[in-house]
Amino acid sequence: MSAPYTLVLLRHGQSTWNQQNLFTGWVDVRLSEQGVTEATRAGELLKEAGLLPDVLHTSLLSRAIQTANLALEEADRLWVPVKRSWRLNERHYGALQGLDKAETLATYGQEQFMLWRRSFDTPPPVLADDNEWSQAKDPRYAGLGDDLPRTECLKDVVERMLPYWESDIAPDLRTGQTVLVTAHGNSLRALVKHLDGISDDAIAELNIPTGIPLVYKLGDDMMPLGPGEYLDPEAAAAGAAAVAAQGNKK
Amino acid sequence: MSAPYTLVLLRHGQSTWNQQNLFTGWVDVRLSEQGVTEATRAGELLKEAGLLPDVLHTSLLSRAIQTANLALEEADRLWVPVKRSWRLNERHYGALQGLDKAETLATYGQEQFMLWRRSFDTPPPVLADDNEWSQAKDPRYAGLGDDLPRTECLKDVVERMLPYWESDIAPDLRTGQTVLVTAHGNSLRALVKHLDGISDDAIAELNIPTGIPLVYKLGDDMMPLGPGEYLDPEAAAAGAAAVAAQGNKK
Repeated sequence: MSAPYTLVLLRHGQSTWNQQNLFTGWVDVRLSEQGVTEATRAGELLKEAGLLPDVLHTSLLSRAIQTANLALEEADRLWVPVKRSWRLNERHYGALQGLDKAETLATYGQEQFMLWRRSFDTPPPVLADDNEWSQAKDPRYAGLGDDLPRTECLKDVVERMLPYWESDIAPDLRTGQTVLVTAHGNSLRALVKHLDGISDDAIAELNIPTGIPLVYKLGDDMMPLGPGEYLDPEAAAAGAAAVAAQGNKK
Repeated sequence: MSAPYTLVLLRHGQSTWNQQNLFTGWVDVRLSEQGVTEATRAGELLKEAGLLPDVLHTSLLSRAIQTANLALEEADRLWVPVKRSWRLNERHYGALQGLDKAETLATYGQEQFMLWRRSFDTPPPVLADDNEWSQAKDPRYAGLGDDLPRTECLKDVVERMLPYWESDIAPDLRTGQTVLVTAHGNSLRALVKHLDGISDDAIAELNIPTGIPLVYKLGDDMMPLGPGEYLDPEAAAAGAAAVAAQGNKK
Protein backbone atom coordinates (compact mmCIF):
# COMPACT_ATOMS: atom_id res chain seq x y z
CA MET A 1 0.00 0.00 0.00
CA SER A 2 1.06 3.61 -0.35
CA ALA A 3 0.34 6.89 1.44
CA PRO A 4 -1.81 8.48 2.68
CA TYR A 5 -2.44 6.21 5.62
CA THR A 6 -5.37 6.87 7.96
CA LEU A 7 -5.01 7.03 11.75
CA VAL A 8 -7.95 7.80 14.05
CA LEU A 9 -7.30 8.70 17.69
CA LEU A 10 -10.12 8.57 20.24
CA ARG A 11 -9.93 9.56 23.90
CA HIS A 12 -12.39 7.58 26.06
CA GLY A 13 -15.63 9.24 27.08
CA GLN A 14 -16.16 10.70 30.55
CA SER A 15 -15.50 8.22 33.36
CA THR A 16 -17.14 8.12 36.78
CA TRP A 17 -13.95 9.59 38.26
CA ASN A 18 -13.68 12.34 35.62
CA GLN A 19 -17.19 13.22 36.76
CA GLN A 20 -16.14 13.23 40.43
CA ASN A 21 -12.99 15.23 39.58
CA LEU A 22 -10.58 12.59 40.97
CA PHE A 23 -7.09 11.74 39.67
CA THR A 24 -7.54 8.38 37.94
CA GLY A 25 -4.38 7.23 36.15
CA TRP A 26 -4.28 3.44 36.14
CA VAL A 27 -7.29 2.97 38.44
CA ASP A 28 -9.76 0.95 36.36
CA VAL A 29 -12.95 3.01 36.60
CA ARG A 30 -15.84 2.71 34.12
CA LEU A 31 -17.57 5.18 31.84
CA SER A 32 -20.23 7.46 33.31
CA GLU A 33 -23.60 7.71 31.57
CA GLN A 34 -22.31 10.77 29.76
CA GLY A 35 -19.24 8.77 28.74
CA VAL A 36 -21.46 6.06 27.22
CA THR A 37 -23.29 8.73 25.23
CA GLU A 38 -19.99 10.25 24.05
CA ALA A 39 -18.63 6.86 22.94
CA THR A 40 -21.75 6.11 20.93
CA ARG A 41 -21.60 9.57 19.37
CA ALA A 42 -17.97 8.88 18.39
CA GLY A 43 -19.17 5.81 16.49
CA GLU A 44 -21.81 7.89 14.71
CA LEU A 45 -19.16 10.44 13.70
CA LEU A 46 -16.94 7.68 12.29
CA LYS A 47 -19.85 6.22 10.35
CA GLU A 48 -21.00 9.59 8.98
CA ALA A 49 -17.44 10.39 7.88
CA GLY A 50 -17.06 6.95 6.23
CA LEU A 51 -14.00 6.36 8.42
CA LEU A 52 -14.56 2.71 9.19
CA PRO A 53 -11.78 1.17 11.32
CA ASP A 54 -10.15 -2.01 9.99
CA VAL A 55 -8.27 -2.68 13.21
CA LEU A 56 -8.47 -1.44 16.79
CA HIS A 57 -5.73 -0.75 19.35
CA THR A 58 -6.72 -0.12 22.97
CA SER A 59 -5.11 0.25 26.37
CA LEU A 60 -5.78 -2.33 29.10
CA LEU A 61 -8.15 0.02 30.92
CA SER A 62 -11.89 -0.66 30.87
CA ARG A 63 -12.96 2.93 30.07
CA ALA A 64 -11.00 2.89 26.79
CA ILE A 65 -12.20 -0.62 25.92
CA GLN A 66 -15.83 0.28 26.68
CA THR A 67 -15.46 3.38 24.50
CA ALA A 68 -14.08 1.33 21.61
CA ASN A 69 -16.78 -1.33 21.98
CA LEU A 70 -19.59 1.24 21.96
CA ALA A 71 -18.13 3.24 19.06
CA LEU A 72 -17.53 0.11 16.96
CA GLU A 73 -21.01 -1.19 17.73
CA GLU A 74 -22.49 2.09 16.48
CA ALA A 75 -20.26 2.00 13.37
CA ASP A 76 -21.12 -1.70 12.63
CA ARG A 77 -17.46 -2.72 13.05
CA LEU A 78 -17.56 -4.87 16.19
CA TRP A 79 -15.84 -7.64 14.24
CA VAL A 80 -12.52 -5.90 13.50
CA PRO A 81 -9.33 -7.39 15.00
CA VAL A 82 -8.29 -5.95 18.37
CA LYS A 83 -4.90 -5.52 20.01
CA ARG A 84 -4.46 -4.24 23.56
CA SER A 85 -1.38 -2.94 25.32
CA TRP A 86 -0.50 -1.42 28.70
CA ARG A 87 1.72 0.94 26.66
CA LEU A 88 -1.45 2.82 25.63
CA ASN A 89 -2.62 3.19 29.26
CA GLU A 90 -3.22 6.58 30.85
CA ARG A 91 -0.28 8.18 32.63
CA HIS A 92 0.23 6.57 36.04
CA TYR A 93 -0.57 9.39 38.45
CA GLY A 94 1.47 7.97 41.35
CA ALA A 95 0.37 8.99 44.84
CA LEU A 96 -2.24 11.34 43.35
CA GLN A 97 -4.37 8.39 42.18
CA GLY A 98 -7.69 8.49 44.04
CA LEU A 99 -7.24 12.10 45.27
CA ASP A 100 -9.71 14.90 44.57
CA LYS A 101 -8.29 17.39 42.07
CA ALA A 102 -9.76 20.48 43.76
CA GLU A 103 -8.57 19.36 47.21
CA THR A 104 -5.12 18.62 45.80
CA LEU A 105 -5.01 22.08 44.29
CA ALA A 106 -6.07 23.65 47.61
CA THR A 107 -3.54 21.63 49.61
CA TYR A 108 -0.47 22.00 47.39
CA GLY A 109 -1.16 25.30 45.61
CA GLN A 110 -1.43 26.19 41.94
CA GLU A 111 2.28 25.92 41.12
CA GLN A 112 2.85 22.39 42.48
CA PHE A 113 -0.53 21.26 41.12
CA MET A 114 0.25 22.45 37.58
CA LEU A 115 3.76 21.00 37.78
CA TRP A 116 2.33 17.54 38.48
CA ARG A 117 -0.42 17.91 35.91
CA ARG A 118 1.45 19.50 33.05
CA SER A 119 5.24 19.52 33.45
CA PHE A 120 6.93 17.23 30.98
CA ASP A 121 9.41 15.57 33.32
CA THR A 122 8.28 15.92 36.95
CA PRO A 123 6.33 12.87 38.14
CA PRO A 124 4.13 12.93 41.26
CA PRO A 125 5.40 10.98 44.31
CA VAL A 126 5.36 7.20 43.84
CA LEU A 127 2.28 5.19 44.79
CA ALA A 128 3.05 2.55 47.45
CA ASP A 129 2.31 -1.07 46.43
CA ASP A 130 0.03 -1.45 49.46
CA ASN A 131 -2.06 1.61 48.58
CA GLU A 132 -5.67 0.74 47.76
CA TRP A 133 -5.24 2.35 44.32
CA SER A 134 -2.04 0.48 43.41
CA GLN A 135 -1.92 -1.89 40.41
CA ALA A 136 0.94 -3.96 41.84
CA LYS A 137 -1.34 -6.99 42.30
CA ASP A 138 -3.56 -6.53 39.24
CA PRO A 139 -3.43 -9.74 37.16
CA ARG A 140 -3.51 -7.86 33.86
CA TYR A 141 -0.04 -6.47 34.59
CA ALA A 142 1.41 -9.71 35.98
CA GLY A 143 3.83 -10.07 33.07
CA LEU A 144 5.27 -6.53 33.33
CA GLY A 145 7.80 -7.10 36.10
CA ASP A 146 10.01 -4.02 36.51
CA ASP A 147 8.15 -2.20 33.72
CA LEU A 148 5.14 -1.65 36.01
CA PRO A 149 5.12 2.08 36.83
CA ARG A 150 4.49 3.47 40.33
CA THR A 151 4.31 7.02 38.98
CA GLU A 152 4.91 8.69 35.63
CA CYS A 153 5.51 12.08 34.07
CA LEU A 154 4.53 12.68 30.43
CA LYS A 155 8.14 11.98 29.39
CA ASP A 156 7.80 8.48 30.86
CA VAL A 157 4.59 7.97 28.89
CA VAL A 158 6.28 9.01 25.64
CA GLU A 159 9.10 6.55 26.34
CA ARG A 160 6.85 3.54 26.99
CA MET A 161 4.24 4.43 24.33
CA LEU A 162 6.50 5.05 21.30
CA PRO A 163 7.89 1.48 21.13
CA TYR A 164 4.30 0.22 20.69
CA TRP A 165 3.65 2.83 18.01
CA GLU A 166 6.67 1.48 16.11
CA SER A 167 6.11 -2.24 16.75
CA ASP A 168 2.34 -2.55 16.35
CA ILE A 169 0.44 0.54 15.20
CA ALA A 170 2.69 1.78 12.37
CA PRO A 171 2.92 -1.73 10.79
CA ASP A 172 -0.89 -1.96 10.73
CA LEU A 173 -1.06 1.48 9.07
CA ARG A 174 1.50 0.41 6.45
CA THR A 175 -0.84 -2.38 5.27
CA GLY A 176 -3.34 0.33 4.29
CA GLN A 177 -5.79 -0.37 7.07
CA THR A 178 -7.69 2.43 8.81
CA VAL A 179 -6.36 2.17 12.37
CA LEU A 180 -8.39 3.26 15.42
CA VAL A 181 -6.46 3.90 18.65
CA THR A 182 -8.74 4.25 21.68
CA ALA A 183 -6.80 5.49 24.67
CA HIS A 184 -6.36 8.29 27.21
CA GLY A 185 -5.66 11.99 27.63
CA ASN A 186 -1.97 11.54 28.28
CA SER A 187 -1.11 8.52 26.14
CA LEU A 188 -2.72 10.36 23.21
CA ARG A 189 -0.93 13.62 24.10
CA ALA A 190 2.31 11.62 23.99
CA LEU A 191 1.46 10.30 20.53
CA VAL A 192 0.34 13.71 19.21
CA LYS A 193 3.55 15.25 20.60
CA HIS A 194 5.50 12.78 18.46
CA LEU A 195 3.34 13.19 15.35
CA ASP A 196 3.14 16.99 15.44
CA GLY A 197 6.70 17.51 16.68
CA ILE A 198 5.52 19.51 19.70
CA SER A 199 8.27 20.68 22.07
CA ASP A 200 8.57 19.52 25.69
CA ASP A 201 7.38 22.96 26.81
CA ALA A 202 4.55 23.51 24.34
CA ILE A 203 2.91 20.13 25.02
CA ALA A 204 1.69 21.53 28.36
CA GLU A 205 -0.87 23.60 26.47
CA LEU A 206 -2.31 20.70 24.46
CA ASN A 207 -5.60 19.28 25.71
CA ILE A 208 -7.45 16.45 23.97
CA PRO A 209 -11.24 16.34 24.41
CA THR A 210 -13.09 13.11 25.27
CA GLY A 211 -15.10 11.16 22.73
CA ILE A 212 -14.29 13.02 19.49
CA PRO A 213 -12.32 11.18 16.78
CA LEU A 214 -9.09 12.96 15.74
CA VAL A 215 -8.02 11.98 12.22
CA TYR A 216 -4.49 12.07 10.78
CA LYS A 217 -3.40 11.32 7.23
CA LEU A 218 0.17 10.02 7.29
CA GLY A 219 2.91 9.78 4.68
CA ASP A 220 5.31 6.92 4.00
CA ASP A 221 7.52 8.13 6.87
CA MET A 222 4.50 7.63 9.20
CA MET A 223 4.41 11.37 9.94
CA PRO A 224 1.36 13.61 9.28
CA LEU A 225 0.78 15.14 5.85
CA GLY A 226 -1.19 17.95 7.54
CA PRO A 227 -2.73 18.85 10.88
CA GLY A 228 -4.94 16.31 12.64
CA GLU A 229 -8.64 17.07 12.25
CA TYR A 230 -11.43 16.48 14.74
CA LEU A 231 -14.60 15.06 13.22
CA ASP A 232 -16.67 17.56 15.26
CA PRO A 233 -14.36 20.62 15.55
CA GLU A 234 -16.82 22.75 17.53
CA ALA A 235 -17.42 20.11 20.19
CA ALA A 236 -13.67 19.40 20.27
CA ALA A 237 -12.81 23.04 21.06
CA ALA A 238 -15.38 23.14 23.87
CA GLY A 239 -14.15 19.79 25.22
CA ALA A 240 -10.50 20.84 25.22
CA ALA A 241 -11.38 24.00 27.15
CA ALA A 242 -13.24 21.89 29.72
CA VAL A 243 -10.19 19.63 30.20
CA ALA A 244 -7.94 22.69 30.70
CA ALA A 245 -10.30 24.01 33.41
CA GLN A 246 -10.17 20.82 35.50
CA GLY A 247 -9.08 21.29 39.12
CA ASN A 248 -10.83 24.61 39.23
CA LYS A 249 -14.14 22.88 39.78
CA LYS A 250 -15.65 23.30 43.23
CA MET B 1 1.61 -26.09 32.07
CA SER B 2 -0.11 -29.39 32.74
CA ALA B 3 -3.68 -30.68 32.79
CA PRO B 4 -6.40 -30.02 33.67
CA TYR B 5 -6.97 -27.18 31.21
CA THR B 6 -10.11 -25.04 31.46
CA LEU B 7 -12.36 -24.31 28.50
CA VAL B 8 -15.56 -22.25 28.80
CA LEU B 9 -18.10 -22.27 25.97
CA LEU B 10 -20.79 -19.60 25.78
CA ARG B 11 -23.60 -19.38 23.25
CA HIS B 12 -24.68 -15.78 22.60
CA GLY B 13 -27.80 -14.46 24.30
CA GLN B 14 -31.13 -14.15 22.47
CA SER B 15 -30.91 -12.09 19.29
CA THR B 16 -33.63 -9.96 17.74
CA TRP B 17 -34.13 -12.69 15.13
CA ASN B 18 -34.22 -15.51 17.71
CA GLN B 19 -37.01 -13.47 19.26
CA GLN B 20 -38.82 -13.13 15.92
CA ASN B 21 -38.26 -16.86 15.17
CA LEU B 22 -36.33 -16.24 11.93
CA PHE B 23 -33.47 -18.33 10.52
CA THR B 24 -30.38 -16.19 11.10
CA GLY B 25 -27.16 -18.00 10.17
CA TRP B 26 -24.59 -15.43 9.02
CA VAL B 27 -27.01 -12.47 9.02
CA ASP B 28 -25.46 -10.03 11.48
CA VAL B 29 -28.33 -9.25 13.85
CA ARG B 30 -27.87 -7.82 17.35
CA LEU B 31 -28.85 -9.04 20.81
CA SER B 32 -32.40 -8.43 22.00
CA GLU B 33 -32.96 -6.85 25.42
CA GLN B 34 -33.32 -10.34 26.84
CA GLY B 35 -30.04 -11.27 25.14
CA VAL B 36 -28.28 -8.37 26.85
CA THR B 37 -29.63 -9.56 30.20
CA GLU B 38 -28.50 -13.14 29.48
CA ALA B 39 -24.99 -12.01 28.51
CA THR B 40 -24.61 -9.98 31.69
CA ARG B 41 -25.88 -12.93 33.73
CA ALA B 42 -23.25 -15.13 32.04
CA GLY B 43 -20.57 -12.74 33.30
CA GLU B 44 -22.00 -12.92 36.83
CA LEU B 45 -21.94 -16.73 36.67
CA LEU B 46 -18.28 -16.70 35.58
CA LYS B 47 -17.38 -14.30 38.37
CA GLU B 48 -19.28 -16.26 41.04
CA ALA B 49 -17.59 -19.49 39.91
CA GLY B 50 -14.15 -17.84 39.91
CA LEU B 51 -13.79 -18.85 36.25
CA LEU B 52 -12.08 -15.72 34.98
CA PRO B 53 -11.16 -15.90 31.28
CA ASP B 54 -7.54 -15.14 30.37
CA VAL B 55 -8.25 -15.02 26.64
CA LEU B 56 -11.34 -14.75 24.46
CA HIS B 57 -12.17 -16.31 21.10
CA THR B 58 -15.25 -15.08 19.21
CA SER B 59 -16.87 -15.44 15.82
CA LEU B 60 -17.12 -12.43 13.48
CA LEU B 61 -20.82 -11.98 14.26
CA SER B 62 -21.96 -9.03 16.39
CA ARG B 63 -24.28 -11.03 18.65
CA ALA B 64 -21.41 -13.24 19.86
CA ILE B 65 -19.08 -10.25 20.25
CA GLN B 66 -21.72 -8.25 22.16
CA THR B 67 -22.27 -11.27 24.44
CA ALA B 68 -18.55 -11.57 25.13
CA ASN B 69 -18.16 -7.83 25.76
CA LEU B 70 -21.08 -7.77 28.22
CA ALA B 71 -20.00 -10.94 30.04
CA LEU B 72 -16.38 -9.77 30.33
CA GLU B 73 -17.50 -6.33 31.51
CA GLU B 74 -19.53 -7.97 34.27
CA ALA B 75 -16.62 -10.27 35.19
CA ASP B 76 -14.10 -7.36 35.22
CA ARG B 77 -12.11 -8.95 32.38
CA LEU B 78 -12.63 -6.51 29.49
CA TRP B 79 -8.84 -6.28 29.13
CA VAL B 80 -8.13 -9.89 28.11
CA PRO B 81 -6.69 -10.54 24.64
CA VAL B 82 -9.25 -11.28 21.92
CA LYS B 83 -9.07 -13.38 18.75
CA ARG B 84 -11.90 -13.54 16.23
CA SER B 85 -12.51 -15.99 13.41
CA TRP B 86 -15.18 -16.68 10.83
CA ARG B 87 -14.56 -20.36 11.64
CA LEU B 88 -16.55 -19.85 14.87
CA ASN B 89 -19.52 -18.32 13.01
CA GLU B 90 -22.98 -19.81 13.17
CA ARG B 91 -23.87 -22.38 10.52
CA HIS B 92 -24.68 -20.63 7.23
CA TYR B 93 -28.36 -21.38 6.74
CA GLY B 94 -28.31 -20.94 2.97
CA ALA B 95 -31.59 -19.93 1.35
CA LEU B 96 -33.37 -20.24 4.72
CA GLN B 97 -31.62 -17.11 6.04
CA GLY B 98 -34.26 -14.45 6.71
CA LEU B 99 -37.20 -16.90 6.58
CA ASP B 100 -39.69 -17.39 9.40
CA LYS B 101 -39.21 -20.77 11.10
CA ALA B 102 -42.91 -21.47 11.63
CA GLU B 103 -43.77 -20.52 8.04
CA THR B 104 -40.93 -22.68 6.74
CA LEU B 105 -42.25 -25.59 8.79
CA ALA B 106 -45.79 -25.04 7.45
CA THR B 107 -44.57 -24.75 3.84
CA TYR B 108 -42.15 -27.68 3.71
CA GLY B 109 -43.54 -29.98 6.40
CA GLN B 110 -41.98 -31.47 9.52
CA GLU B 111 -39.70 -33.97 7.78
CA GLN B 112 -37.95 -31.53 5.43
CA PHE B 113 -37.83 -28.90 8.16
CA MET B 114 -36.11 -31.22 10.65
CA LEU B 115 -33.76 -32.48 7.93
CA TRP B 116 -32.51 -28.95 7.30
CA ARG B 117 -32.35 -28.10 10.99
CA ARG B 118 -30.87 -31.25 12.40
CA SER B 119 -29.49 -33.65 9.81
CA PHE B 120 -25.73 -33.90 9.93
CA ASP B 121 -25.02 -33.73 6.24
CA THR B 122 -27.98 -32.21 4.34
CA PRO B 123 -27.51 -28.46 3.78
CA PRO B 124 -30.40 -26.17 2.83
CA PRO B 125 -30.43 -24.80 -0.77
CA VAL B 126 -27.67 -22.28 -1.47
CA LEU B 127 -28.23 -18.56 -0.89
CA ALA B 128 -27.77 -16.50 -4.05
CA ASP B 129 -25.09 -13.79 -3.89
CA ASP B 130 -27.65 -11.15 -4.84
CA ASN B 131 -30.06 -12.13 -2.06
CA GLU B 132 -30.53 -9.36 0.52
CA TRP B 133 -29.31 -11.74 3.27
CA SER B 134 -26.13 -12.81 1.44
CA GLN B 135 -22.68 -12.10 2.91
CA ALA B 136 -20.94 -12.16 -0.49
CA LYS B 137 -20.20 -8.42 -0.29
CA ASP B 138 -19.60 -8.13 3.45
CA PRO B 139 -16.13 -6.57 3.99
CA ARG B 140 -15.41 -8.76 7.02
CA TYR B 141 -15.27 -11.81 4.75
CA ALA B 142 -13.35 -10.14 1.92
CA GLY B 143 -10.28 -12.34 2.47
CA LEU B 144 -12.17 -15.65 2.40
CA GLY B 145 -12.40 -16.19 -1.35
CA ASP B 146 -13.74 -19.65 -2.11
CA ASP B 147 -14.03 -20.46 1.60
CA LEU B 148 -17.10 -18.22 1.90
CA PRO B 149 -20.08 -20.54 2.38
CA ARG B 150 -23.42 -20.10 0.57
CA THR B 151 -25.01 -22.81 2.72
CA GLU B 152 -23.80 -25.32 5.28
CA CYS B 153 -24.83 -28.50 7.04
CA LEU B 154 -23.42 -29.31 10.49
CA LYS B 155 -20.77 -31.51 8.87
CA ASP B 156 -19.49 -28.45 6.98
CA VAL B 157 -19.35 -26.51 10.24
CA VAL B 158 -17.32 -29.27 11.90
CA GLU B 159 -14.91 -29.24 8.98
CA ARG B 160 -14.29 -25.49 9.02
CA MET B 161 -14.35 -25.10 12.83
CA LEU B 162 -11.95 -27.89 13.85
CA PRO B 163 -8.87 -26.39 12.11
CA TYR B 164 -9.32 -23.27 14.27
CA TRP B 165 -9.68 -25.39 17.40
CA GLU B 166 -6.33 -27.00 16.56
CA SER B 167 -4.50 -23.88 15.36
CA ASP B 168 -5.68 -21.27 17.87
CA ILE B 169 -7.84 -22.48 20.77
CA ALA B 170 -5.95 -25.61 21.83
CA PRO B 171 -2.56 -23.79 21.85
CA ASP B 172 -4.02 -21.11 24.18
CA LEU B 173 -5.35 -23.85 26.46
CA ARG B 174 -1.95 -25.54 26.55
CA THR B 175 -0.37 -22.40 28.05
CA GLY B 176 -2.64 -22.91 31.07
CA GLN B 177 -4.95 -19.99 30.30
CA THR B 178 -8.69 -20.18 30.98
CA VAL B 179 -10.12 -19.88 27.47
CA LEU B 180 -13.58 -18.43 26.76
CA VAL B 181 -15.15 -19.24 23.39
CA THR B 182 -18.22 -17.12 22.65
CA ALA B 183 -20.02 -18.43 19.59
CA HIS B 184 -23.25 -19.95 18.26
CA GLY B 185 -25.66 -22.83 18.58
CA ASN B 186 -24.17 -24.81 15.72
CA SER B 187 -20.47 -23.89 15.93
CA LEU B 188 -20.60 -24.92 19.59
CA ARG B 189 -22.53 -28.13 18.76
CA ALA B 190 -19.74 -28.91 16.30
CA LEU B 191 -17.12 -28.41 19.01
CA VAL B 192 -19.06 -30.40 21.63
CA LYS B 193 -19.54 -33.20 19.08
CA HIS B 194 -15.75 -33.40 18.77
CA LEU B 195 -15.05 -33.13 22.51
CA ASP B 196 -17.71 -35.59 23.65
CA GLY B 197 -17.28 -37.96 20.70
CA ILE B 198 -20.97 -37.72 19.77
CA SER B 199 -22.02 -39.68 16.67
CA ASP B 200 -23.34 -38.07 13.49
CA ASP B 201 -26.82 -39.33 14.38
CA ALA B 202 -26.89 -38.53 18.09
CA ILE B 203 -25.76 -34.91 17.62
CA ALA B 204 -29.26 -34.13 16.29
CA GLU B 205 -30.57 -34.39 19.85
CA LEU B 206 -28.04 -32.00 21.38
CA ASN B 207 -29.28 -28.47 22.05
CA ILE B 208 -27.14 -25.77 23.65
CA PRO B 209 -28.97 -23.06 25.61
CA THR B 210 -28.16 -19.37 25.19
CA GLY B 211 -26.16 -17.38 27.73
CA ILE B 212 -25.10 -20.12 30.15
CA PRO B 213 -21.37 -20.92 30.42
CA LEU B 214 -20.50 -24.58 29.74
CA VAL B 215 -17.24 -25.62 31.39
CA TYR B 216 -14.89 -28.42 30.33
CA LYS B 217 -11.76 -29.64 32.08
CA LEU B 218 -9.40 -31.09 29.47
CA GLY B 219 -6.46 -33.48 29.68
CA ASP B 220 -3.10 -33.28 27.90
CA ASP B 221 -4.71 -34.77 24.78
CA MET B 222 -7.12 -31.77 24.74
CA MET B 223 -10.07 -34.09 25.33
CA PRO B 224 -12.47 -33.80 28.31
CA LEU B 225 -11.64 -35.44 31.64
CA GLY B 226 -15.38 -35.60 32.39
CA PRO B 227 -18.71 -34.27 31.13
CA GLY B 228 -19.03 -30.54 30.44
CA GLU B 229 -20.90 -28.72 33.22
CA TYR B 230 -23.23 -25.75 32.91
CA LEU B 231 -22.73 -23.09 35.57
CA ASP B 232 -26.52 -22.88 36.04
CA PRO B 233 -27.75 -26.44 35.29
CA GLU B 234 -31.43 -25.73 35.94
CA ALA B 235 -31.56 -22.74 33.59
CA ALA B 236 -29.51 -24.72 31.04
CA ALA B 237 -32.04 -27.57 30.96
CA ALA B 238 -34.93 -25.14 30.48
CA GLY B 239 -33.00 -23.28 27.78
CA ALA B 240 -32.12 -26.44 25.85
CA ALA B 241 -35.79 -27.47 25.87
CA ALA B 242 -36.76 -24.05 24.49
CA VAL B 243 -34.24 -24.41 21.64
CA ALA B 244 -35.59 -27.85 20.78
CA ALA B 245 -39.15 -26.43 20.57
CA GLN B 246 -38.27 -23.73 18.01
CA GLY B 247 -40.30 -23.79 14.85
CA ASN B 248 -43.35 -24.85 16.79
CA LYS B 249 -43.94 -21.28 17.88
CA LYS B 250 -46.96 -19.57 16.35
